[in-house]
Amino acid sequence: MTDISPVLTRADENLDSSLERLFELVRIKSISTDPAYKPDCRKAAEWLVATLSNIGFTASVRDTAGHPMVVAHHAGAAEDAPHVLFYGHYDVQPVDPIELWENDPFAPAIKDLGDGRKVVTGRGTSDDKGQLMTFVEACRAYKEVHGNLPVRVTILFEGEEESGSPSLKPFLEANAAELKADYAFVCDTGMWDSDTPAIAATLRGLVGEEVTITAADRDLHSGLFGGAAANPIHILAEILAGLHDETGRVTLEGFYDGVEETPANIKASWETLGRDATSFLGEVGLSVPSGEKGRSVLELTWARPTAEVNGITGGYTGEGFKTVIAAKASAKVSFRLVGQQDPAKIRDSFRAYVRSKLPADCTAEFHEHGGSPAIQLSYDSPVLTKAKGALSDEWPKAAVVIGMGGSIPIVGDFQKMLGMDSLLVGFGLVDDRIHSPNEKYDLKSFHKGIRSWARILAALAA
Amino acid sequence: MTDISPVLTRADENLDSSLERLFELVRIKSISTDPAYKPDCRKAAEWLVATLSNIGFTASVRDTAGHPMVVAHHAGAAEDAPHVLFYGHYDVQPVDPIELWENDPFAPAIKDLGDGRKVVTGRGTSDDKGQLMTFVEACRAYKEVHGNLPVRVTILFEGEEESGSPSLKPFLEANAAELKADYAFVCDTGMWDSDTPAIAATLRGLVGEEVTITAADRDLHSGLFGGAAANPIHILAEILAGLHDETGRVTLEGFYDGVEETPANIKASWETLGRDATSFLGEVGLSVPSGEKGRSVLELTWARPTAEVNGITGGYTGEGFKTVIAAKASAKVSFRLVGQQDPAKIRDSFRAYVRSKLPADCTAEFHEHGGSPAIQLSYDSPVLTKAKGALSDEWPKAAVVIGMGGSIPIVGDFQKMLGMDSLLVGFGLVDDRIHSPNEKYDLKSFHKGIRSWARILAALAA
Repeated sequence: MTDISPVLTRADENLDSSLERLFELVRIKSISTDPAYKPDCRKAAEWLVATLSNIGFTASVRDTAGHPMVVAHHAGAAEDAPHVLFYGHYDVQPVDPIELWENDPFAPAIKDLGDGRKVVTGRGTSDDKGQLMTFVEACRAYKEVHGNLPVRVTILFEGEEESGSPSLKPFLEANAAELKADYAFVCDTGMWDSDTPAIAATLRGLVGEEVTITAADRDLHSGLFGGAAANPIHILAEILAGLHDETGRVTLEGFYDGVEETPANIKASWETLGRDATSFLGEVGLSVPSGEKGRSVLELTWARPTAEVNGITGGYTGEGFKTVIAAKASAKVSFRLVGQQDPAKIRDSFRAYVRSKLPADCTAEFHEHGGSPAIQLSYDSPVLTKAKGALSDEWPKAAVVIGMGGSIPIVGDFQKMLGMDSLLVGFGLVDDRIHSPNEKYDLKSFHKGIRSWARILAALAA
Repeated sequence: MTDISPVLTRADENLDSSLERLFELVRIKSISTDPAYKPDCRKAAEWLVATLSNIGFTASVRDTAGHPMVVAHHAGAAEDAPHVLFYGHYDVQPVDPIELWENDPFAPAIKDLGDGRKVVTGRGTSDDKGQLMTFVEACRAYKEVHGNLPVRVTILFEGEEESGSPSLKPFLEANAAELKADYAFVCDTGMWDSDTPAIAATLRGLVGEEVTITAADRDLHSGLFGGAAANPIHILAEILAGLHDETGRVTLEGFYDGVEETPANIKASWETLGRDATSFLGEVGLSVPSGEKGRSVLELTWARPTAEVNGITGGYTGEGFKTVIAAKASAKVSFRLVGQQDPAKIRDSFRAYVRSKLPADCTAEFHEHGGSPAIQLSYDSPVLTKAKGALSDEWPKAAVVIGMGGSIPIVGDFQKMLGMDSLLVGFGLVDDRIHSPNEKYDLKSFHKGIRSWARILAALAA
């Protein structure tokens, strides 16, 4: 195994120039949602290609129907070295409301918070320019010390992440052979806390459904028909109320097929994190965990499936009152999936359940709003173990393997289209104010982030 | 008892001139909702005062903050004769869309439908100018034959019924002593069918409530919080689903206090009317009665209380999908009341029920949308019996005593403010197209309506 110390030393020595490069990138106004900044997006892609080329990558700007991709390749030290795909995005959110920024969002600066923390201010410093540059600068330090990289690296930077990534799937499809690696690192997430790095190993999947119940063929007067005519809001309320039993479990037939218990050691590690119902729910004004009884809030949000009603509407919802029995009522319902739950089966089971609750003279229409299975990296996979060890060596506290309650489409796409697992490693902090005025990235995140990637690269090759 | 035959004969002889007077009234464009027709409303009131004065009433136009009232008094044949308040309204609905009218809405005409029916066409012919003129012309015939009226009559015509009657309550309050009678006749309803007159003896009351459930202090991402955070739509769905038990009864504590069974003879008479679940619900595309099991649709809509959700909203209800757990969800709920149900108690019981279903960290806010008790005329009251007999004498089929599922505010106001029961008798038919283009009133409704009131007046004095 290569000695990592000189690489870390070089990363430390490079820090000022690494920061200057990050500043250059932040100064480019690559707001992907606003067509006025289209040239800036290209400029950012070109800047990245030039920067990667300087440290030995074969890099190119790749046109799409939208903003361009950056693809870069670097050989590993050995022919049989592992092959890593690194993903990040160079586009940033708009800066409105601009008057709330204390500094020009596109004039990055170091700011001393006075509590021992220094931060880099500016739009994109955390999401995602600062994060992706930790990897680029780690490669630079490695290359400068050893003349090569320990593993084969492919880089994919997109410029439409903040715009829903419309070009990503077609690009992955068209370039699958070029982009396929042993596994992907996605650097767009955060630390557990400022001393504790985190690797997300599970992401819940999602099934979205919209159901519309129709009763009478028109809205009815509740005086004339109330008590005799079916009320679709009542039917919908019963259907939705019946989705959970009194223990909080989802009642759909076969819903828990493919759901496994989280290993005891993982659950035990989560219990040390200090995020209990009081702290987790207290932040949003709540205190009583809903959902399945007898499980921690981290387990409920990371490792258990759910059924949630995301929206409901029916009848008269304006000011005042209208004594109407509506013809229709509808709800948007989503299911968060874990483990091996099958989105298609969950959808079918939901629809069958709804139909089973319908009076004979009412109908239900369904509208599909996406479906993707959960992502579950094996908790004992070697790459996870190596990355965890490398991160634990760098930071004051050992890395934790966490789950993510939501889905990140790119991870599903890598899985589905390139047959490749992803590790989510990033160094953002909860107070980075991404998408908001005064976005920042801790200098410590940037510096130790670079060192972390250097350690991970070395560990992967070992 | 006075002989009614000569009065009926006189009504028959008068028919052409009665019609001409109706035409005069219909020609006045007394649209109360459109300020452009304010002078026309006054003109209609003045026309009525003149017409009533011509047949011996002491009549006057009475100013209000809106359109004027018409109040008229006529002594009875005897000092101790019963005192009747007759209510109608001279204002009419707008005529849009005017292009759908086959005749000028303010140029009334007799039209032969070719199936043996002749109708008077024009705005207000049925709602309510034709109806109120049946009473005026009955008084005329009586007066012309006998030189007086058999009972003491007070007439109240308002000009804002189609605009929500804003001046009515203040007017009743200010003139309670003058307007109080033994009972009121409200002539703004219809026949059961073209051969069967109807008297509405019960009107359901109404309690309107809006409830808003608040869970978290902001909208939450369903990925991050789903499974752990309370979802107010779920809570609301459970609350609403729990309002009825499996037999369709409302579950609120004390809800059925004051609800009595409809007398067997009344229920039996309803069963002869031929309106069963198939015919009643079939008109609106339904077939299965909801609500309390084992009761006919007429009983359910006329004589049983209900709980109906009139509107519901929460979370994301726009196009597409949003994986949000809403902070709030709300519903508008109404209760139709019968018998002696107490609106205040029902409201309290609902609120207590909602609160009992709330998780400890969620709250409910309530907003009151009106409350009025049911109107229930005793099925064996003498005035009801007399009116029923008089109507049955006039029409091919016996009069039926029916209920009305909805409330008619004027009836509640007469009850509450003047301590006076109301009988609802009218001669409209379901195909009169009130509020729509091509409104009409059957010539038979007008002619036999006049004769009906003559018979009722005589019966009341007997």
